[in-house]
Amino acid sequence: MALVVRNIPRADAGVIDALGGYGVATVHEAQGRKGLLASYMRPIYRPAQIAGSAVTCEVAPGDNWMIHVAVEQCRAGDILVVAPTSPCEDGYFGDLLATSLQARGVRGLVMDAGVRDIAVLTEMGFPVWSKAVFAQGTVKETLGNVNLPLLCAGALVNPGDVIVADDDGVCVVRHQEAADVAEKARQREANELDKRARLAAGELGLDIYKMRERLAEKGLRWVDEA
Amino acid sequence: MALVVRNIPRADAGVIDALGGYGVATVHEAQGRKGLLASYMRPIYRPAQIAGSAVTCEVAPGDNWMIHVAVEQCRAGDILVVAPTSPCEDGYFGDLLATSLQARGVRGLVMDAGVRDIAVLTEMGFPVWSKAVFAQGTVKETLGNVNLPLLCAGALVNPGDVIVADDDGVCVVRHQEAADVAEKARQREANELDKRARLAAGELGLDIYKMRERLAEKGLRWVDEA
Amino acid sequence: MALVVRNIPRADAGVIDALGGYGVATVHEAQGRKGLLASYMRPIYRPAQIAGSAVTCEVAPGDNWMIHVAVEQCRAGDILVVAPTSPCEDGYFGDLLATSLQARGVRGLVMDAGVRDIAVLTEMGFPVWSKAVFAQGTVKETLGNVNLPLLCAGALVNPGDVIVADDDGVCVVRHQEAADVAEKARQREANELDKRARLAAGELGLDIYKMRERLAEKGLRWVDEA
Amino acid sequence: MALVVRNIPRADAGVIDALGGYGVATVHEAQGRKGLLASYMRPIYRPAQIAGSAVTCEVAPGDNWMIHVAVEQCRAGDILVVAPTSPCEDGYFGDLLATSLQARGVRGLVMDAGVRDIAVLTEMGFPVWSKAVFAQGTVKETLGNVNLPLLCAGALVNPGDVIVADDDGVCVVRHQEAADVAEKARQREANELDKRARLAAGELGLDIYKMRERLAEKGLRWVDEA
Amino acid sequence: MALVVRNIPRADAGVIDALGGYGVATVHEAQGRKGLLASYMRPIYRPAQIAGSAVTCEVAPGDNWMIHVAVEQCRAGDILVVAPTSPCEDGYFGDLLATSLQARGVRGLVMDAGVRDIAVLTEMGFPVWSKAVFAQGTVKETLGNVNLPLLCAGALVNPGDVIVADDDGVCVVRHQEAADVAEKARQREANELDKRARLAAGELGLDIYKMRERLAEKGLRWVDEA
Amino acid sequence: MALVVRNIPRADAGVIDALGGYGVATVHEAQGRKGLLASYMRPIYRPAQIAGSAVTCEVAPGDNWMIHVAVEQCRAGDILVVAPTSPCEDGYFGDLLATSLQARGVRGLVMDAGVRDIAVLTEMGFPVWSKAVFAQGTVKETLGNVNLPLLCAGALVNPGDVIVADDDGVCVVRHQEAADVAEKARQREANELDKRARLAAGELGLDIYKMRERLAEKGLRWVDEA
Repeated sequence: MALVVRNIPRADAGVIDALGGYGVATVHEAQGRKGLLASYMRPIYRPAQIAGSAVTCEVAPGDNWMIHVAVEQCRAGDILVVAPTSPCEDGYFGDLLATSLQARGVRGLVMDAGVRDIAVLTEMGFPVWSKAVFAQGTVKETLGNVNLPLLCAGALVNPGDVIVADDDGVCVVRHQEAADVAEKARQREANELDKRARLAAGELGLDIYKMRERLAEKGLRWVDEA
Repeated sequence: MALVVRNIPRADAGVIDALGGYGVATVHEAQGRKGLLASYMRPIYRPAQIAGSAVTCEVAPGDNWMIHVAVEQCRAGDILVVAPTSPCEDGYFGDLLATSLQARGVRGLVMDAGVRDIAVLTEMGFPVWSKAVFAQGTVKETLGNVNLPLLCAGALVNPGDVIVADDDGVCVVRHQEAADVAEKARQREANELDKRARLAAGELGLDIYKMRERLAEKGLRWVDEA
Repeated sequence: MALVVRNIPRADAGVIDALGGYGVATVHEAQGRKGLLASYMRPIYRPAQIAGSAVTCEVAPGDNWMIHVAVEQCRAGDILVVAPTSPCEDGYFGDLLATSLQARGVRGLVMDAGVRDIAVLTEMGFPVWSKAVFAQGTVKETLGNVNLPLLCAGALVNPGDVIVADDDGVCVVRHQEAADVAEKARQREANELDKRARLAAGELGLDIYKMRERLAEKGLRWVDEA
Repeated sequence: MALVVRNIPRADAGVIDALGGYGVATVHEAQGRKGLLASYMRPIYRPAQIAGSAVTCEVAPGDNWMIHVAVEQCRAGDILVVAPTSPCEDGYFGDLLATSLQARGVRGLVMDAGVRDIAVLTEMGFPVWSKAVFAQGTVKETLGNVNLPLLCAGALVNPGDVIVADDDGVCVVRHQEAADVAEKARQREANELDKRARLAAGELGLDIYKMRERLAEKGLRWVDEA
Repeated sequence: MALVVRNIPRADAGVIDALGGYGVATVHEAQGRKGLLASYMRPIYRPAQIAGSAVTCEVAPGDNWMIHVAVEQCRAGDILVVAPTSPCEDGYFGDLLATSLQARGVRGLVMDAGVRDIAVLTEMGFPVWSKAVFAQGTVKETLGNVNLPLLCAGALVNPGDVIVADDDGVCVVRHQEAADVAEKARQREANELDKRARLAAGELGLDIYKMRERLAEKGLRWVDEA
Repeated sequence: MALVVRNIPRADAGVIDALGGYGVATVHEAQGRKGLLASYMRPIYRPAQIAGSAVTCEVAPGDNWMIHVAVEQCRAGDILVVAPTSPCEDGYFGDLLATSLQARGVRGLVMDAGVRDIAVLTEMGFPVWSKAVFAQGTVKETLGNVNLPLLCAGALVNPGDVIVADDDGVCVVRHQEAADVAEKARQREANELDKRARLAAGELGLDIYKMRERLAEKGLRWVDEA
């Protein structure tokens, strides 16, 4: 038996868009350096930067049947998040599924496995973060759950959590914490604006962050020659 | 001792070009989901999409001597397929060899090892699918066979087989089956055209492919809340 | 205790720029096929081609503190070379540090670990060669040495050695040998110019390099059919 | 800030021991093919087969400070589960920590990173499942949480969950489900006993499981010659 | 549709046993340095050394149904060779299937995927070479071919080919060539016997193989100090 | 051209044996957490624990010729250290070379590539640490240097440096620093003896190392419930 859950919580649309604007590195720092998916999750084209609500989809190895089921649960602004029950790099997803998701206003795909038709996906402007690019076809035989919590590329994703994805990778933010994280990201970015200007003007991080004293205390010594 | 075979079968040029037009994912499905090279075979630039007849070349680890021998066996419309006798990521191939192949009308290279000079290859428009990019130079000491069957990136390639390569990777089609596979790919693509239009219009794959009943039989249940 | 060495030798600026012009594959060959960093060191954008004097920076896993220290030791024309004391793919480096380095005229970064903010780094035109792209943040707790010899991606880099980096990867040239290697690279490139023209005109490498006799001696045989 | 939680739920000791007796493959099947840690988690010696309550410990890359904190939270019958906040293979754990854990009656360690002193650990009979064996030392600078839910080798481990580990790898069972899973595992094993006897007597799985008809329906054909 | 071929050629039993006695390294050399499976194929216990006739079995990712079909085609002296149609590390095989194979006199398993129950397999003395040890269970939904040529761990295995497997890995010998390879292996081993005695007595390979002159010709120089 | 250096410095035999007794983890710590080879260097059998003077040998990919040259430079008490000029996992070394080395009193092999005949090597008691086990044969065509500094598995090894190798991996100690490192290792081990006894008696590392105050200062909090 397997379940498809129809109603999932979603964060506020404005908050989601704000998180998407800040991007993965900032959001991940803002929420305490957590929520990153594994570094093997790479975009099929660059640049790409999106945020959306996670619709989660569990699939069997080599079997993309449940993706068809999950499509129906996706709304405009969502991101489909797919993970196999054991490691697999088959090409679960291609241009037909992308056409279907794009028609529904879905913003992108996060796939802890392989995808294919990436030339067409690139032309369509449908962004995908995946573990592999591989044309290997899949079957439609085995059930999995849709919109239950999912482990994807080493991170826990609950349905409705906010996915932020850009050229640096993918980060997940709990939907309950999204507004708070967005505010912290805003502060962080504001703070960085000033720092960036000072660094661009030639000031040193050593001075801006007042690191010299602590470095010396720990035992760092500057010498003229090796 | 090693052999260079001069005469190899080649599929019909029109069939080869048709296969190139359909691309890797479609061709691989059309021939029953077989023939893919390993997913680590990636193009050095994108987009790139070619098809051609395989000239096969076996090389020793760290030794590219036989590629020079294989060049002479290549004709316009061919694709050179190179694999080492044991795993190696050295840079067997660079701009000089590419110049030579391009002068003969060769369409590209499939290399189960490393290549170099990829900035120049990109400017030249000479597409390469390889396991690695690595500048490591090679020697010229050891013989290997040219135009005998070859295991390349986990797939068996016979001389004259049709190689199809695009952004999704590389697929091999037996030359004897090429016309049949091209026809099946044509049918598949025609069939997908209609599906794509319906999906783009918002129809669901669940309905187009009539999956709902079988999903329910297998035990899938839709619930409102988790 | 850890050391920061202020004065390091640097090769002649003209020699460095010449090496940069020849690129990694040629320079590596010119110095006897040595000095390449591991093939997993890939540029975050392409094309990119630079050369500069190495400022070396040792960091602890997950700790980018010493990069801030190393920035101060960098001059215009330098390349910062960073390696962790044990394997790590965290995102040690992002747009703020790049802004600081760019303000000092530093030409790029070679990082045997992860980097982040790569969309911004790409826009800035600040080239980076790294082992990974990963947004994972780092701490500032542990000392390391700056401008001592460093093992980076399997190669030994001394402070002031010339780093050459392009789409093919990264190569290190001892600063004492830089002028000699540049001269050898010049000769090699001149020699290749003629070869390229002959190959482009359809002449075979087998003939240009007079390989046929030695191939036959080793036992190569040409046959018409397999 | 970081937290150490003192009180965690634990499953019934008899249930835990029963699960340990069934082993990883059976327990994983009994709970619906879930809960396995990644296949890279291997025992440092074989055979080894244990079960216990998880004490979870989050560590920074290259920093084993929190393991010392976690030791205090371990009781007889527990298994310490350690994971870094980003991938790391440093040797976080050696014979001194093992001595301390063994003195407290801890049954073993599950470490999503490296361990060292494995010759001594083997002599002591202290079993460890880890991602790597590596002597690389760690520092003691950065805090992490103890006894909060932890992602370890791709699986979610809550404090008090039952860890089952043997030569096949590691499986986690939610403490609330432990009794139920143990009962299902018992039934599964009983069922397998009979099957094993019949298979050992030469009966075929095709017949025992009555697979022939369904295979034929799906289209399997037996032929005498290829 | 999928096929099971009942009748396959097998090499002479005495030849097979002889090949098993020589082991992988010698047999691979004797047949011209070909036929090795990828180095990731490792035995689950050591020492183990077998040879037998290959019964080949293609499986879908995460689906071990066809192994049950293949068992029926195995005779005493055979080795079952299983490969998935795309890379997978699931635990396709455990103690029940091993019991069944052992009851039929099958000598071992070569599995380009994962296996489980390895503690029991070790006790039973049923040797397995596999890509992974992983308890992940599989389904029984998808057909594959039995006793057709199969690509396994980068090597082509025809049904009835001789598989030689030991602590060094796995090698395949074409059944038509088995007698010839066994004879060459015998000569090779005889030749090595003498060499081993001379080397054990302190004679140098440099002298036994008369390498000094050719080394000097190539340019090797001996110096007292670096 | 390539060089063989006949005379190399060697550390005091008593110091070498002392280092071997302390083992890799202790020696690596005693010299400031440096000198480890990459964690992929694993022993072919366990337990194994040796130390000796490095004779260094550079080889081309797939070519073991220079090992025969290096054997002559080895004395009793040495360890042969071999690394290819580009990554390779071929089986460079087997029982004949081991017989020759053992006849000379060489203590073991460190090979940043593959080895074969490991069942025989195990029986002989000749310990090897390698990157891979692979039967793939090699040729004898290309020169390399013997007893020049060598990069092996990410570490710099000078001829005559002390190699320490055990179940945890491999560590290199500069021969000039060997006596000093041995003394520091002795102190470290003495210090650990007391710690081990206290930990075995149930005392906590938190108390022995007086960590509680600093943990609290950094912000660690103990709570009863999550």
